[in-house]
Amino acid sequence: MTIEQAKKKALELIKKSKTCVLATVDKNGFPNMRAMMNLKNDGLQTIWFSTNFSSIKIAQIKKNKKGGVYFFDEKMFKGLRLIGEIKIKTDKASREKLWHPGFEIYYPKGVNDPDYCVLELKIKAGNYYQGFEKADFKI
Amino acid sequence: MTIEQAKKKALELIKKSKTCVLATVDKNGFPNMRAMMNLKNDGLQTIWFSTNFSSIKIAQIKKNKKGGVYFFDEKMFKGLRLIGEIKIKTDKASREKLWHPGFEIYYPKGVNDPDYCVLELKIKAGNYYQGFEKADFKI
Repeated sequence: MTIEQAKKKALELIKKSKTCVLATVDKNGFPNMRAMMNLKNDGLQTIWFSTNFSSIKIAQIKKNKKGGVYFFDEKMFKGLRLIGEIKIKTDKASREKLWHPGFEIYYPKGVNDPDYCVLELKIKAGNYYQGFEKADFKI
Repeated sequence: MTIEQAKKKALELIKKSKTCVLATVDKNGFPNMRAMMNLKNDGLQTIWFSTNFSSIKIAQIKKNKKGGVYFFDEKMFKGLRLIGEIKIKTDKASREKLWHPGFEIYYPKGVNDPDYCVLELKIKAGNYYQGFEKADFKI
């Protein structure tokens, strides 16, 4: 599998994934994971997530911006590992870009809820595998 | 949800999971994830995995033993985050304990294949969530 093929398949996997796993690093250096809704990405450059500003991950990202995202299809034995740095965004444009109808379940005050914020992961590198084939790439 | 209820549900989630996600921390401090077969655990104390000794995760664990495991059921909105330290085991008892028929696909030389080894995660702490309920626990 060439790097170009891996990147193409990586984008296909992101497109069909409803969720992914986001990892941050806690204050003691342990990787902490949680499932996240797959909402928006700009190719393999940037991935955005919505989250509660009061969540533990925000406290972790404030101290350590290094993160990772993992998309996978366990039945098809496909996976995409991405690493990069995470920014916490609370500006109006970011809030509106990620807002979806129904988000009031998580953020009762709507798009301006002070507990709503956006995470922006700028991807530095990745690895895509399918069966026994895999390829590393830099972004 | 009490801590005891969370631990009970955590064990139920492990039991019914075919795979989970294992995170290690690379030499630059970024969390790296990959799906792993869910093979064996001793309650919420220890989880074991089989892997290729030549894999990148082994090089990462040699430098940084801090790891995490994540089990989740995206449809039921349930997840279990565990953190702890990982040991690389190559002894006969560990090899035999984790060996499954068919593993020759990954380790052609069988249970004594030099590229076969076992990872042992000793769990320190965890978090279980189900819907909007969650609980942290220490092990």
